[in-house]
Amino acid sequence: MNHAVNATVHSACGSEPGLISVDQALQMILDHTDHLGTEILPLSQALNRFVAEDVYSEIQLPMFSQSAVDGYAICMDTDMPSRSTFELIGEIRAGQVANFELQPRQAVRIFTGAKIPKQTTTVARQEIVQFDGSSITLTEALRLDADVRKAGEEITIGQCLASQGQQLSIGTIAALSMAGVREVSVYRYPKIAVVITGDEVAETVEDLNSGKIFDANAPLIQAWFQSRNQQVDILHVADTEQAVCDLFTNLRDQYDLILTTGGVSVGDYDFVRPVALKLGFEQIFWKVKQKPGKPMFFAKSERSEQGTCYLLGLPGNPGAVYVGMQIYVATLMDALQGQKLLPQWFNGVISHDLKADSRERLLRMVASFETGILKLSSLPKQQSHMLSNLMQANCLVRIPAHQNIQSGQVLQGLFI
Amino acid sequence: MNHAVNATVHSACGSEPGLISVDQALQMILDHTDHLGTEILPLSQALNRFVAEDVYSEIQLPMFSQSAVDGYAICMDTDMPSRSTFELIGEIRAGQVANFELQPRQAVRIFTGAKIPKQTTTVARQEIVQFDGSSITLTEALRLDADVRKAGEEITIGQCLASQGQQLSIGTIAALSMAGVREVSVYRYPKIAVVITGDEVAETVEDLNSGKIFDANAPLIQAWFQSRNQQVDILHVADTEQAVCDLFTNLRDQYDLILTTGGVSVGDYDFVRPVALKLGFEQIFWKVKQKPGKPMFFAKSERSEQGTCYLLGLPGNPGAVYVGMQIYVATLMDALQGQKLLPQWFNGVISHDLKADSRERLLRMVASFETGILKLSSLPKQQSHMLSNLMQANCLVRIPAHQNIQSGQVLQGLFI
Repeated sequence: MNHAVNATVHSACGSEPGLISVDQALQMILDHTDHLGTEILPLSQALNRFVAEDVYSEIQLPMFSQSAVDGYAICMDTDMPSRSTFELIGEIRAGQVANFELQPRQAVRIFTGAKIPKQTTTVARQEIVQFDGSSITLTEALRLDADVRKAGEEITIGQCLASQGQQLSIGTIAALSMAGVREVSVYRYPKIAVVITGDEVAETVEDLNSGKIFDANAPLIQAWFQSRNQQVDILHVADTEQAVCDLFTNLRDQYDLILTTGGVSVGDYDFVRPVALKLGFEQIFWKVKQKPGKPMFFAKSERSEQGTCYLLGLPGNPGAVYVGMQIYVATLMDALQGQKLLPQWFNGVISHDLKADSRERLLRMVASFETGILKLSSLPKQQSHMLSNLMQANCLVRIPAHQNIQSGQVLQGLFI
Repeated sequence: MNHAVNATVHSACGSEPGLISVDQALQMILDHTDHLGTEILPLSQALNRFVAEDVYSEIQLPMFSQSAVDGYAICMDTDMPSRSTFELIGEIRAGQVANFELQPRQAVRIFTGAKIPKQTTTVARQEIVQFDGSSITLTEALRLDADVRKAGEEITIGQCLASQGQQLSIGTIAALSMAGVREVSVYRYPKIAVVITGDEVAETVEDLNSGKIFDANAPLIQAWFQSRNQQVDILHVADTEQAVCDLFTNLRDQYDLILTTGGVSVGDYDFVRPVALKLGFEQIFWKVKQKPGKPMFFAKSERSEQGTCYLLGLPGNPGAVYVGMQIYVATLMDALQGQKLLPQWFNGVISHDLKADSRERLLRMVASFETGILKLSSLPKQQSHMLSNLMQANCLVRIPAHQNIQSGQVLQGLFI
């Protein structure tokens, strides 16, 4: 069974020597990028950003010893049998100061999270207590230290809460908030211009009558950044050398990254690379031995005072743009925020055979768990000008070049 | 080895009979909710939303037969040997109309994505072509139908592009855009008021001297919705019956969901449930046999013209709020958008033993892939008032009640 059926008969283009591999391209992105500096942000605006400096706690957590339940704080220096009685001397609610100092055989009514009074030795949850107006009686035996959350048992003053490089997830934002952290030093996110090249992109429905097509790339890239809570500026440019040159000249001064689609191959109207080189961009790589996305181009330009402007040129086919965003742009975004990490590929088990190809393929597949094992199944319509299988796909899977793949083989992939 | 070490000695509270299970609570959320209607949105604002009506394609894709490469469109009704020559009669760029009609032994220069002229039988990629000014010569043999993308080979007119219930991911937005879809009917997202109860929440640093604590719940919930590109209104309320009553009366008319933290247990200052019942909310469930989050409360109130207002009361401990958001609120948000689906638990293999507990536990763990198998390892500091292990955790794992778990056992979980 061979799932990755391509309806179009394809020529062998792409097998030329000298192309770099997917792994080499990713490593070159890491080797040739630097972070863009840091900034202080309120925690509420820092979701998904990376911590630029270790964060140490200024407080201990819990901040004070407190009750873990609704019940009674008790003073008694031994374990207590059932039917023990205690004098009730008051009440402490969560958020109130505990001014009491318990004496042996005394108790106070207390609520979850409330600060226990001095001399408390244990807390009796209300379910095991009878109350008669001025005293309480235990209905079960009670140990010392029951249901007390001790001051500092989770976090001590000066403890490292978040290390440099930690990504601020929902959980980490909550954990920092609980320790009173209100703002955090994070790596700056790049300012990004997205340039859609190609005279074939329809601006109106009427354009479709003249050989033009609807653009998937701008919506795709916009949604990708939206999903990461980031905004980008999206621009279109005509397929002339002058238009591309004028635009790049302008953008290079204003943006940290120019991300382009189309115009990076060897066609007569592919101006992204020649214009970038003419403007002094230094080529880091061009052409990767992969399918889709072979003509991908990466370059950078040093500016006098503003540091580096990077240029990543993705091919124009939307399948190549999709793979480019999920693998290369994701890696580049992290690298520009100081995180030089290769993609965290999962290992999954392919459920069918696949024929060899001269380039590494990045196939859209469905991954599902079966008793702890991740099973991978390819989808039809994998060509670079097709996207409809993204309605079903939940991962991209790497198929090494020149290998016939057999059912049961372990392959690397990324969830999408 | 037992990783889930709890420093505080805990009472056996929570083992009372009559509590519903996690699975029962989730099923009751699905059984007692309805979607909130539909709306038309531009595709650019519809990321993560669910399609309310099947979307059919008004066009075919590719819209016209086109070249898959930069090369030459050729007319010849048999396979061609190397050294075949053709008369070159013009050029077609992507986005241009193809007015040519090829005759046998004629060719036109053509670029990737450009509409092939009438009578084209194959495309020769430029790498296998020599060009001498007025004619071209093949340097390799060439088959019919090479490097042609055929009109309609991916999508036909009238084909279903996205089914009712499809979630609009980055890939699906791109695929719909490519088919010219500009707006889409989606289920309405609930309008949500988040109510943080508890007099113990510090408003200023000075408050910390009086038994108050920093709030993790509001930042946690805000970040959770932010990560889904949604905004919510966050309000605080004092622990008095009147304040809770006034606020709920007001919110019920304006919001589809009131999501609360704290005030749902049996303490003397737990007003969420009694006030909701007094205002006519119908209890769907209260108390789930789980740790953390036992006192969770779910209710609804029918309004005259605006449909239903739902109320989900999470406990106040931030660990319970975190689990509540990832499991119950996620399920509820989908249900209120017409998607009645239980969480898609993964199966993973636990790498150590765990002792039994009287309630089902939802433990924060680290999951990692080892040659296709998902391995799970628990983290310390799992108590409901602790969050710091969320710096490391990447999943929540279900530990069934009353079972000693052994290393190698398969458990269900969710990535977080």
